[in-house]
Amino acid sequence: MTGIPTATISRLVTYLRILEGLEAHEISRTSSNDLAERAGVTAFQVRKDLAYFGRFGTRGMGYTVPILKRELMRVLGLNQTWNVVVVGMGRLGQAIANYPGASDYQFQYVGLFDVNPDVVGRTVRGLPVRHMDELPEFVRGHKVDMGFLAVPPDHAQDAAQALAGAGVRGILNFAPTVIQPRMLERAGQQEISDEWRAVIVENVDFLAGMKRLAFYILNPHLNAVDTEETE
Amino acid sequence: MTGIPTATISRLVTYLRILEGLEAHEISRTSSNDLAERAGVTAFQVRKDLAYFGRFGTRGMGYTVPILKRELMRVLGLNQTWNVVVVGMGRLGQAIANYPGASDYQFQYVGLFDVNPDVVGRTVRGLPVRHMDELPEFVRGHKVDMGFLAVPPDHAQDAAQALAGAGVRGILNFAPTVIQPRMLERAGQQEISDEWRAVIVENVDFLAGMKRLAFYILNPHLNAVDTEETE
Repeated sequence: MTGIPTATISRLVTYLRILEGLEAHEISRTSSNDLAERAGVTAFQVRKDLAYFGRFGTRGMGYTVPILKRELMRVLGLNQTWNVVVVGMGRLGQAIANYPGASDYQFQYVGLFDVNPDVVGRTVRGLPVRHMDELPEFVRGHKVDMGFLAVPPDHAQDAAQALAGAGVRGILNFAPTVIQPRMLERAGQQEISDEWRAVIVENVDFLAGMKRLAFYILNPHLNAVDTEETE
Repeated sequence: MTGIPTATISRLVTYLRILEGLEAHEISRTSSNDLAERAGVTAFQVRKDLAYFGRFGTRGMGYTVPILKRELMRVLGLNQTWNVVVVGMGRLGQAIANYPGASDYQFQYVGLFDVNPDVVGRTVRGLPVRHMDELPEFVRGHKVDMGFLAVPPDHAQDAAQALAGAGVRGILNFAPTVIQPRMLERAGQQEISDEWRAVIVENVDFLAGMKRLAFYILNPHLNAVDTEETE
């Protein structure tokens, strides 16, 4: 598996969400046309996205909803448990810790962290809020896979560094800022530092959504269908 | 302008964020290579994304940061004021209303709405929380452009319908559910109802980010660079 567009992964997530909706309505069969319409893309795009990962349907027969759902969950790694810490327990961190549905996918919140003495020691969703100083030991002791960053933008880079340094493998960044891996100068070359080599950063940026919305309100004719496949 | 991939719009938003970072560090020139590296895509992709909207640089000279920033803001519609209401004032709605940076882009929160009698009447960020019954009149009276949906998933479709019915042009959906336009049966055909024709829906889905993160932790070799241009 090489050369899979990031947009394909985002769309797999959308297809999975649609399949769950179909299953909730006890609809057991679907097609690339049906998925395409619900996802706002073309049927060609659906078939192309799925083809990266195998053959899931029968030609002319479409897909069986629970089977395709199970296969997409396997592809996305959602059939296993992920241990998660939330860093930054202001309003946003609390909203994230209480976000509906996270635990449906085996995302288990195992630790909550902050630096604010007014917040450290409180209990949110049954977990104590710990001080960031405890993070490295906690991550090792609890086999933490992911950190969700909900700190103010000015503190995002430092908090991300703490997560990467502690050995977390993935960071979901909610701050409206780009997280950069730490770079080292080695033999005159800029190199990514060791602790960042295996770290994946994904962004959930509210502002990005607002900006895309502004663009599409100004250019509604560009929003009919995802046109990526015409490139 | 036709046939612009949605992924291009998302990347323009990323480039803009990078340009703002450069400007904050008083860096006045950049290049497609530099933007590409910071955004995690190829330089070819940067040039292709920008080329949809005009010629912004000088061959071999790169881009002037404040000029490219200003042009991207114009393209994205961020040089004008957008009036926003937030629907759902639980933890998430409060986090959104207080999210840092929204007001930097002329996103003006003009109204906050909920149905919970414990919340209606409270003040958040200097605005009273109003009951949803007041929404239609408020949207018309305050020229509301966008609604941010922060209600529980079960209520997202109804709240979106209320926003569309009130004449809002864009919905930013924070609930982990797909919003569907209302369909009508006309002359035996399914048609989008009038109030939904001009409505744009963008999703900010925390769970989608978590799922992409799970995929890339399992498949880290697929995360090196956006491979879209190789399609």
